Amino acid sequence: MAMDAISVIRAKRDRGELSDAQIDWVIDAYTRGEVADEQMSALAMAILLNGMNRREIARWTAAMIASGERMDFSALSRPTADKHSTGGVGDKITLPLAPLVAACGAAVPQLSGRGLGHTGGTLDKLESIPGWRASLSNDEMLSVLNGAGAVICAAGDGLAPADKKLYALRDVTGTVEAIPLIASSIMSKKIAEGTGSLVLDVKVGSGAFMKTLADARELAATMVGLGTDHGVRTVALLTDMATPLGLTAGNALEVRESIEVLAGGGPSDVVELTLALAREMLTAAGLPDADPAKALADGSAMDVWRRMITAQGGDPDAPLPVAREHQTVRAPATGVLTRLDAYDIGVAAWRLGAGRARKEDPVQAGAGVELHAKPGEHITQGQPLLTLHTDTPDRFGYALESVTNAYDIESPGTAFEASPVVLERIA
Amino acid sequence: MAMDAISVIRAKRDRGELSDAQIDWVIDAYTRGEVADEQMSALAMAILLNGMNRREIARWTAAMIASGERMDFSALSRPTADKHSTGGVGDKITLPLAPLVAACGAAVPQLSGRGLGHTGGTLDKLESIPGWRASLSNDEMLSVLNGAGAVICAAGDGLAPADKKLYALRDVTGTVEAIPLIASSIMSKKIAEGTGSLVLDVKVGSGAFMKTLADARELAATMVGLGTDHGVRTVALLTDMATPLGLTAGNALEVRESIEVLAGGGPSDVVELTLALAREMLTAAGLPDADPAKALADGSAMDVWRRMITAQGGDPDAPLPVAREHQTVRAPATGVLTRLDAYDIGVAAWRLGAGRARKEDPVQAGAGVELHAKPGEHITQGQPLLTLHTDTPDRFGYALESVTNAYDIESPGTAFEASPVVLERIA
Repeated sequence: MAMDAISVIRAKRDRGELSDAQIDWVIDAYTRGEVADEQMSALAMAILLNGMNRREIARWTAAMIASGERMDFSALSRPTADKHSTGGVGDKITLPLAPLVAACGAAVPQLSGRGLGHTGGTLDKLESIPGWRASLSNDEMLSVLNGAGAVICAAGDGLAPADKKLYALRDVTGTVEAIPLIASSIMSKKIAEGTGSLVLDVKVGSGAFMKTLADARELAATMVGLGTDHGVRTVALLTDMATPLGLTAGNALEVRESIEVLAGGGPSDVVELTLALAREMLTAAGLPDADPAKALADGSAMDVWRRMITAQGGDPDAPLPVAREHQTVRAPATGVLTRLDAYDIGVAAWRLGAGRARKEDPVQAGAGVELHAKPGEHITQGQPLLTLHTDTPDRFGYALESVTNAYDIESPGTAFEASPVVLERIA
Repeated sequence: MAMDAISVIRAKRDRGELSDAQIDWVIDAYTRGEVADEQMSALAMAILLNGMNRREIARWTAAMIASGERMDFSALSRPTADKHSTGGVGDKITLPLAPLVAACGAAVPQLSGRGLGHTGGTLDKLESIPGWRASLSNDEMLSVLNGAGAVICAAGDGLAPADKKLYALRDVTGTVEAIPLIASSIMSKKIAEGTGSLVLDVKVGSGAFMKTLADARELAATMVGLGTDHGVRTVALLTDMATPLGLTAGNALEVRESIEVLAGGGPSDVVELTLALAREMLTAAGLPDADPAKALADGSAMDVWRRMITAQGGDPDAPLPVAREHQTVRAPATGVLTRLDAYDIGVAAWRLGAGRARKEDPVQAGAGVELHAKPGEHITQGQPLLTLHTDTPDRFGYALESVTNAYDIESPGTAFEASPVVLERIA
């Protein structure tokens, strides 16, 4: 059957369903360059506004997987487990989590990404460790995974190339926030990567792409369905992203906090979420009796971290970069800190240099925001509330703008009910 | 105020109104290449699905006019009148109409287009006349207009360049059928062209882009409002396009039929619509007492035609091209012809070579469809119903597919009520 881009666009534009043949053709033709960027962006907008049903999303995902190679970890002696977060502020969880789960007996092939908008990227964070390399060949990746038990690296160019192209296009055409496109983008990479089990951390709140529980539920259920249909044991946790995770947002700042967690310390919300996700990953990988709390306490997770960083060229003992300048924001009043907005803090860290305005921009390793208090704590007027870090002090003014309305301090004694870290579980 | 393409796309995507500043910026930045094709196509799809209000359409049109030069006919001694058709099958009306209105005392600067999809293009038709040139400089255009009273030519590159770029983009991204974009595209060119009055022929029915009277009314009212707001006396006629106009669809075939009309003959529906549009144009141009029927009968319209064709390099006495091959479709039954579908006949003519699959393709001058009967006529089994013409006989099969279901013949004596040529008038 002859296909053309315009008839596929029109079908979705006019609220029709795309056939399997139409989806296969358009993904393949787009990857080959026969369907032009301007045609795919019109189709993406039509999908964003008119939606796709479960069959369409499943076929779209399968077509993106088929656009490239599939990895195979079946030769490993250990079960594989992977985690994906939809992106948040201060979300350094992958850093302690991957070595922790490996220390408990699973193999963790963690393909990660760079920062997008106000959210940080795992690879950007790890690159603040002197010598560490994000790009590995497939053979190098397998070798690190075999030797250390875990590997965190960039996805190779051969994995779901249709998604790579479409992801970059969506970023510049206002078509990021489409649940069918987000779900198929994440799941095509994870399924092509070949993991046996997958835990999804779907963030909800101001600092996340999903602002409401209803949207997060829909996205989570869509992704769990896709994973299950492709034989990947998939579970999703809906977790709070109204407030930043931990006490840091920024690259080296978050590595330091992650090492504290691996050393048995660290902020309680980071520890709680790391353990919750570790238990889900280990259960999904068929290791329900493993004890991740013990692996944090006895230093075995830290051992894996050191092996993993070393295997990728990094020096786990090298001092981490520190920003050249800092500025402290002090509490304007005494009372209870009732709100600390994840989106505003994420934007401030981004403006200080922790994130990038364009894909090709560098990031500053030391830039970011340190939090000195979290919601629910009692605050005294004049005490440090936040510290802003940057190498380029002319950015302080722009970052402070984002911080001004980032918090509420209410009168002493105001009742405060903290949100749980994990809101819901969808399997 | 800083602007970026993504925030403009998001505003319309999320069903917001675009501000005047956003519209001015996005049209200018697109014309300069700062907004990319893939961003504009996402915005066009969002406009198609979420609409624009009257203020947005007016500003969008004004911004497209401002992207290029404006022509000025105020130095002419005669009032200017122009006509635009939204496109149909067998719609050769511009050919007899422009010289006819000029013969009655108006100046007719008729900027025309090429075929789009299954609809024919005035310039493609005239190019079947040996030697005739569609591209004129502004000075040449004025000289033909002064000398002959009418000129039919391609719009220069300086006129509404934003529209030229956007029109080509919409054609390949499934975003043609958006009333705000159709209305602003037509009206920006006509207003920039500088005509004093304008009559719009808004086609309705299977062979038109507007399939329903409601859509055609909305498009007509939008365009009349835009013209009036810019000081152009604008009237719209809604006319029937369920059946092809006249007895021919194709380039040279339609020139021949147009010459018959100018000679005082021709099919009655073509004559009726030509006269109705001529009367509207002459009234809008301030010449309500002119008598176009007389100008057809006394040969004065034919005189203008010959001067106009000659002034543009054409030989009005040269034989018109004839296709190398033809094939006749005969009536399968005796009875009343109750339907002859404009869209199907348009597609058949296009497939025979009268239209183009890609912008850069040539058209065949002689290709097309001749009709031997119109709806309402009594048909005898075996009589010729259609003749297909082409230089490339391997196209007959594909064209016949489109013709098979193009007509209905019902039992002899079946009552038939013809649709009027002019359905409504909107001013």
